[in-house]
Amino acid sequence: MVKRVGLVGVTGYTGMELTRILLGHPGLRLTQVTSRKEAGQPLQKIYPFLQGTELGGLEITAPDSKFLAANCDLIFLAVPHGTAMEMAAELRGLGARVVDLSADFRLRDRDVYESWYQVTHTRSALLPEAVYGLPELYAESIAKAGLVANPGCYPTSAILALYPALKAGLISAEDLVIDSKSGTTGAGRKATVGTLFCEVSDTFRAYNLTKHRHTPEIEQELSLAAGKEIRLSFNTHLLPINRGILTTAYAKLMPGADADQIRACYERFYAGKRWVRLLPAGSLPETRWVRGTNFCDLGLVTDPRTNRLIVVSAIDNLCRGASGQAVANANLMLGLGDDLGLPFAPLMP
Amino acid sequence: MVKRVGLVGVTGYTGMELTRILLGHPGLRLTQVTSRKEAGQPLQKIYPFLQGTELGGLEITAPDSKFLAANCDLIFLAVPHGTAMEMAAELRGLGARVVDLSADFRLRDRDVYESWYQVTHTRSALLPEAVYGLPELYAESIAKAGLVANPGCYPTSAILALYPALKAGLISAEDLVIDSKSGTTGAGRKATVGTLFCEVSDTFRAYNLTKHRHTPEIEQELSLAAGKEIRLSFNTHLLPINRGILTTAYAKLMPGADADQIRACYERFYAGKRWVRLLPAGSLPETRWVRGTNFCDLGLVTDPRTNRLIVVSAIDNLCRGASGQAVANANLMLGLGDDLGLPFAPLMP
Amino acid sequence: MVKRVGLVGVTGYTGMELTRILLGHPGLRLTQVTSRKEAGQPLQKIYPFLQGTELGGLEITAPDSKFLAANCDLIFLAVPHGTAMEMAAELRGLGARVVDLSADFRLRDRDVYESWYQVTHTRSALLPEAVYGLPELYAESIAKAGLVANPGCYPTSAILALYPALKAGLISAEDLVIDSKSGTTGAGRKATVGTLFCEVSDTFRAYNLTKHRHTPEIEQELSLAAGKEIRLSFNTHLLPINRGILTTAYAKLMPGADADQIRACYERFYAGKRWVRLLPAGSLPETRWVRGTNFCDLGLVTDPRTNRLIVVSAIDNLCRGASGQAVANANLMLGLGDDLGLPFAPLMP
Amino acid sequence: MVKRVGLVGVTGYTGMELTRILLGHPGLRLTQVTSRKEAGQPLQKIYPFLQGTELGGLEITAPDSKFLAANCDLIFLAVPHGTAMEMAAELRGLGARVVDLSADFRLRDRDVYESWYQVTHTRSALLPEAVYGLPELYAESIAKAGLVANPGCYPTSAILALYPALKAGLISAEDLVIDSKSGTTGAGRKATVGTLFCEVSDTFRAYNLTKHRHTPEIEQELSLAAGKEIRLSFNTHLLPINRGILTTAYAKLMPGADADQIRACYERFYAGKRWVRLLPAGSLPETRWVRGTNFCDLGLVTDPRTNRLIVVSAIDNLCRGASGQAVANANLMLGLGDDLGLPFAPLMP
Repeated sequence: MVKRVGLVGVTGYTGMELTRILLGHPGLRLTQVTSRKEAGQPLQKIYPFLQGTELGGLEITAPDSKFLAANCDLIFLAVPHGTAMEMAAELRGLGARVVDLSADFRLRDRDVYESWYQVTHTRSALLPEAVYGLPELYAESIAKAGLVANPGCYPTSAILALYPALKAGLISAEDLVIDSKSGTTGAGRKATVGTLFCEVSDTFRAYNLTKHRHTPEIEQELSLAAGKEIRLSFNTHLLPINRGILTTAYAKLMPGADADQIRACYERFYAGKRWVRLLPAGSLPETRWVRGTNFCDLGLVTDPRTNRLIVVSAIDNLCRGASGQAVANANLMLGLGDDLGLPFAPLMP
Repeated sequence: MVKRVGLVGVTGYTGMELTRILLGHPGLRLTQVTSRKEAGQPLQKIYPFLQGTELGGLEITAPDSKFLAANCDLIFLAVPHGTAMEMAAELRGLGARVVDLSADFRLRDRDVYESWYQVTHTRSALLPEAVYGLPELYAESIAKAGLVANPGCYPTSAILALYPALKAGLISAEDLVIDSKSGTTGAGRKATVGTLFCEVSDTFRAYNLTKHRHTPEIEQELSLAAGKEIRLSFNTHLLPINRGILTTAYAKLMPGADADQIRACYERFYAGKRWVRLLPAGSLPETRWVRGTNFCDLGLVTDPRTNRLIVVSAIDNLCRGASGQAVANANLMLGLGDDLGLPFAPLMP
Repeated sequence: MVKRVGLVGVTGYTGMELTRILLGHPGLRLTQVTSRKEAGQPLQKIYPFLQGTELGGLEITAPDSKFLAANCDLIFLAVPHGTAMEMAAELRGLGARVVDLSADFRLRDRDVYESWYQVTHTRSALLPEAVYGLPELYAESIAKAGLVANPGCYPTSAILALYPALKAGLISAEDLVIDSKSGTTGAGRKATVGTLFCEVSDTFRAYNLTKHRHTPEIEQELSLAAGKEIRLSFNTHLLPINRGILTTAYAKLMPGADADQIRACYERFYAGKRWVRLLPAGSLPETRWVRGTNFCDLGLVTDPRTNRLIVVSAIDNLCRGASGQAVANANLMLGLGDDLGLPFAPLMP
Repeated sequence: MVKRVGLVGVTGYTGMELTRILLGHPGLRLTQVTSRKEAGQPLQKIYPFLQGTELGGLEITAPDSKFLAANCDLIFLAVPHGTAMEMAAELRGLGARVVDLSADFRLRDRDVYESWYQVTHTRSALLPEAVYGLPELYAESIAKAGLVANPGCYPTSAILALYPALKAGLISAEDLVIDSKSGTTGAGRKATVGTLFCEVSDTFRAYNLTKHRHTPEIEQELSLAAGKEIRLSFNTHLLPINRGILTTAYAKLMPGADADQIRACYERFYAGKRWVRLLPAGSLPETRWVRGTNFCDLGLVTDPRTNRLIVVSAIDNLCRGASGQAVANANLMLGLGDDLGLPFAPLMP
């Protein structure tokens, strides 16, 4: 039986991407989309590319927690952090199940959240029940969760890149350097001079060095992998492309660790996880190979000369890094296959 | 029951796009892919983005007409013109049904073909049986055809833009000007300096003015619409984008024709044709709104000041302009719904 | 002796481009730059790319007409239309010479201006003295002018494309179709969702069809060329590139006009005008070939099959289409060579 | 007095860039350009963007060492490594002064060259006289040199980023990680599928990890800075832009080193070197800020949390990373100012 889902906040890129994915989903039907600003219009008015599809005529409404809770089997929150925590609390109070795409419930430690995001967490009572929605790590808990904190885009790419080697003790937990590059949809759909076409096209820059808010999320999960607290250097750059994150992660090999061992470790760890693709030796990921899909591609390079492991990971920041992963989580929560309705064929080129 | 299809020529962009579409198609299974140069390898060796999908392990073979005819319900030809006519003749001789993506059977008049393509048509005996594969015009004949000539990308966008108004006598058949702009996949996947990233990026140019080989194809179909021979000015430009054609077509209004009449005419003509989307007045197509889909979006602008109709049409040149349309034709030929397995949700952004 | 020039409105793309050009100009020194919003800061604060150059430390001031008039030999206005007319009137009243980059003084007929721009022209008394700043047509008047109306970007490309043939009576003044495509700097530097990177990149669209405000400017000048009133179809598209306009202009040949005649006509008309480059037969312009320069490249294609002349023209919309042309006008007004300090070497690629 | 210079190998991107720079150079005149393949044609035939300039009519000749040596004050070699060493030896034998843009004379140790480039160095006798052409480090030796080895693009960005801190002992010589991203002109102008527009646009990838041939060049110079042998991890990525390299260099702080100390060290080191711009604290380089210029912009970020220094550097790989630096070297060798004729105003945007 098809489940009804709602989407709070349809006007951003993650909301837009959710409409794309849900349009072809055989097990989920998007029945409610909300936006205070655009309420009253059919979706195709703001998204003309949906004209002629089943979602084109869906009317946008103002968010109404009671109505959503009563009429949806699950609700996606694609609203800014801060707003999300309040909405999630309301919906949980009404018994609804929620996938929150914001950062509000990703960090288990309220202090860490408040220190990196510089806001008060007014709904920290919900933190203990929130499950970090990375299916490769937490599929079982996700299935039972009422509130899933959908991972950040950068953290998805970074955690999947380093988790197996850290867990297996093949790399050092010290001196990790993570150099990430993201497409511009990651900056959102707000009108700012800095993300105008003419300010991003044909150029490249670093931003937020040492201060990106996704840092504690990566540290949290990788610390769990390593069994000890990790402090790492995570740094971000803006790519003149729409979609895609490529992360280059640098780690020091533990004594004795070699290429074969490392590859075997990753193969074991991701056996049966079809969304993570370990590329053959000599092959390195490209963001376009995962465009529009939930894949996370990994390339492993062991460098005896400098005694390092370099892991390159690629995801589509909007799909695997946000809305596609949210749907995978919804699938798990609603008892559907975790890959149901998710696109496998990247748009190439 | 799922039908088996073969693909001759998998290494170009149209072959690549066919793998993308067929990967998710519930009624067609791609069982044979051929390439002389890459024979013996699994598809994922040349297309790493297919790793982990059902098609990744499919072995590329050298083309073998007998085997293809015996083992496939239908064969797609994605090889250069000239080569295609020979291959099509062989396959037809063996009773196979063929969708040819080349230009070899699009022009009903052999002389016109030979004069624009500057080669001899060695298989012109097949011309009478070939059906021009534009479903909005010829769905019934396509369903019964043994050989479908899949339309060119530019002609698809130009014919759908002007056909209804010409057929209804609302615009003049004289002085048509068609100004088209195409993404660079239209230039193919051959290594040439002119299509290097650094020669196409951040620039724009016209090419082949007055001489593009798609001209006679457009003239052929629009002449049929008008009921008289049309000679028009068709001109092409290269866009620094991967996919998409936008065509701006300029026509003179016949006396008395007005905006309402024209809109009503297009609405009637495309009623029930879900792949053609007539945008509401005031809205104009963008190539991204059809990215990865079979849609052809149309925007109508009537200009009383200059007494003109301007029709803007947008398609994805690889999907609607080539492989997606080929699959729609295969659907029709094999008795499946014409939209089965074809993507509806454009990749946005 | 080096002349001192001022720039009112430095924060937009045309202001930015003026700083680039003036930085290397041996005869003009930029001594005043104004912006209400950024007053008090050195230029390099808002334009870090000017750090380490002579202009980096120049302090931005609030616009002060008296000070500008007293301290500058010429003032460039790079502010929105409406604002420009007031500023120009003030400065002219103080005896200053002005190059206005806005549309306020381009149209000789106040009614035409008011009808296309939908504002009242409060300073129409200045219209008679304003000179249309297209050096190929009006160099002598420009040299003596107190107020030069710098042409629009599209009109520069369209007028230079068709003027000679119309003047010589080689093409018809009826049924002109001008299909233009512009880079996104043409849309300005204001933060809007429609010009975000992710809304422009990897896509293409038409906009403002039949309604673009540059239409009357093109009609005004081409009517003068033809010696009769021209009404033409001018239409615009947005390119995913930063700089550059490519215009494809379609005209009907007058009886007897042929390719040689047309080429000879253009050669004669542009003899001695080094900024217009007539490409050899068979060669067509590309926007990158003029990137960063004042060149306007022209390609001529005569099509006997449809009895048409197609002229393709390419300019850099920011340089030739705005700030470079403004500097050429300033050169003429101040008695310097019209090409002094203007870049000749396009940035390739 | 204007000096005459020759250019061997005009058809690649570095040759093209040399024509751009030399076109506006007041002290150097390009009198000879060579290409075996294009000999006999005027430059504007292969580079239409040079039509109408002083270089447009210059005839391309086959390379002739004797003629070049006799008629040029200095010769630029823009040919592949291997070919360059032979040509350089011939020209040096004839007494000519040479700036070699290839890698042939950059590495002081022949064995290192042969091991990374996998070819025999047939002209290693010239190695001792070759000067590494990084003006900030070796201006005096360059001025007297007969043979200058123009640095690689990546090494220019990496060496300038880390040299001062290593020299001053403020960062550790161990565990350096250099993550570089380059525009596609860096891949050259040869027709390959991998650098087609549709294979580079809208995507991002790593390549040659741990194996890039620029590694030993960086290690050579930074070892000299540190006074001990350095082995570092240098890794490269391909950006979908034409020009520009952004390098993010990660180093561990030595005990006690802090942000102020580091900034002071860089300020001292680059005092009086106008091509290196140290951005103010809080500002990070963008490749467009140096587009078309010889600038190397540096951004410094000290991270006490992870005890690291991160240096971000940006250059234009074709200008500062190749041809612009070559002209700076030629200026020094011929007794002109090192910045004569070199563009200061980046093309923005």
